[in-house]
Amino acid sequence: MDWKSTIAAAATRIAGHVRVTPVMMAADLGLDRPVDLKFEQMQHTGSFKTRGAFNTLLSSDVPAAGVVAASGGNHGAAVAFAARRLGHAATIFVPEMAGPAKIALIRDTGADCRIVPGAYANALDAALAHEAETGAMQVHAYDAESTVAGQGTVLSEWEAQGLQANTVLIAVGGGGLLAGAMGWLGGARRVVAVEPETSCALHAALAAGGPVDVEVSGIAANALGAKRIGTICHGLAVETGALSVLVTDDAIAGAQRHLWRQLRQLVEPAGAAALAALTSGAYVPAPGERVAVLVCGANPAPDPFG
Amino acid sequence: MDWKSTIAAAATRIAGHVRVTPVMMAADLGLDRPVDLKFEQMQHTGSFKTRGAFNTLLSSDVPAAGVVAASGGNHGAAVAFAARRLGHAATIFVPEMAGPAKIALIRDTGADCRIVPGAYANALDAALAHEAETGAMQVHAYDAESTVAGQGTVLSEWEAQGLQANTVLIAVGGGGLLAGAMGWLGGARRVVAVEPETSCALHAALAAGGPVDVEVSGIAANALGAKRIGTICHGLAVETGALSVLVTDDAIAGAQRHLWRQLRQLVEPAGAAALAALTSGAYVPAPGERVAVLVCGANPAPDPFG
Repeated sequence: MDWKSTIAAAATRIAGHVRVTPVMMAADLGLDRPVDLKFEQMQHTGSFKTRGAFNTLLSSDVPAAGVVAASGGNHGAAVAFAARRLGHAATIFVPEMAGPAKIALIRDTGADCRIVPGAYANALDAALAHEAETGAMQVHAYDAESTVAGQGTVLSEWEAQGLQANTVLIAVGGGGLLAGAMGWLGGARRVVAVEPETSCALHAALAAGGPVDVEVSGIAANALGAKRIGTICHGLAVETGALSVLVTDDAIAGAQRHLWRQLRQLVEPAGAAALAALTSGAYVPAPGERVAVLVCGANPAPDPFG
Repeated sequence: MDWKSTIAAAATRIAGHVRVTPVMMAADLGLDRPVDLKFEQMQHTGSFKTRGAFNTLLSSDVPAAGVVAASGGNHGAAVAFAARRLGHAATIFVPEMAGPAKIALIRDTGADCRIVPGAYANALDAALAHEAETGAMQVHAYDAESTVAGQGTVLSEWEAQGLQANTVLIAVGGGGLLAGAMGWLGGARRVVAVEPETSCALHAALAAGGPVDVEVSGIAANALGAKRIGTICHGLAVETGALSVLVTDDAIAGAQRHLWRQLRQLVEPAGAAALAALTSGAYVPAPGERVAVLVCGANPAPDPFG
């Protein structure tokens, strides 16, 4: 699979529908070295998920029944937003733990948002049943080629903006973003995959030699709490040698505070997880190693204007 | 006065001490046209004020008694931060209305922060008395050449980053930032000076033919509530033909909400005032006119991590 061309094609396809998000070289971020940052939480609907959603919808024949997705919140908001912009109906299934802020974000787009008891896996079952019943097109949150290719445009864009770092730290849930990043980079830079200790589907898969089910909980669970890592992500992680690192919920909360105190960026836990690997020392770069952190989402609960 | 060279010299002087803040062309910000943005609230201490503070301290012989400043909060935090970085003592006088978040920000630097009953003018009196008594160096918040030149580096930096707009909207309190912007641009782009209706020292000065005292109140008063516009700013506004526009407190609150909903930027009222001129229609650009908005500060009350 030629991810580089697939992602380049996705970037062309979604241009004009998504924002080019700003980058910054923060020489002085209260750490022992400069950090390159990309503020992807400034994307439409507050996360990178909009890229995969537009890429999927724009590369498919969407049926009259519209689209359907299961989501902890951010993917659902992105699919709902893209569907509305492109004139399709959208039905989004979310677990209760998505929380009122993310549910409001989805409903604000005009999508039909249905709340499912339990965790993400239950919402996915409901979405699959809806697909079978109505013929709506399923937009998978992370384990589909068009989703991965869309998310990979974060990295192609960042390189076009002059990314200097040797190492890129990225938060992982189901692994759509990470897979896109690994697909684009193809091992040319080190990728550090950061997961909460309490939601670590990639880490478990690497230990077990293949995707396995994990229990998910913790402060980032509605965004990073995939029960099982995507097969595309797992395959690319093995192939490109991504480094898996775990962080505690306390480290994530500390990184959220750090981003506010240093840069006045208010993000959700998942959006600060990658930085948490640096601020907590879970990942210690070598002397001279230049690091980049992707800030990937900012739909915190409660919403400050909710 | 050759502001262009003075500001260029300031930029060289403060390089490495201040951050190059990110810019973004937001094609789709929920308005009828693209908007160029600069996120100067990502500067150290959360506002542009750090530029003027470093420029002043680095171009002066700071006495052993250190520096003193009066401030509604942001200037004080910036002076305190620059003083600590450069190894000087700092005493900062703030009016009560600075609020606990900004007072904590100043105290976190280790500065001696003294709270003065009343408004900014009372804090300024106390700072002048402290200067006379101790020999500490006064760092004026807006009406001093070194302060204005430091703030002007926001615009020289933005042009170096490829600013395209015909028109730049900037919030005005005492006018240090606006003066720096006008000094750098010298009329080459239209400058729209945005003030709250309830704190409009520049507007009043332009109407009266010179600086006059005004009453100050409203949600942005601790940052934009100067009782009298700086003479440097007033002179440059007349000379370069800046356009003065007023916005209501409701418009400012609406722009704060807009910045969050669209870009996940949580800013203080003053930081959203310039955008409020667009979102409220107080300034209506001509067809084809390209506009830029400076987001200048984000020390909101309450502090989300306070």
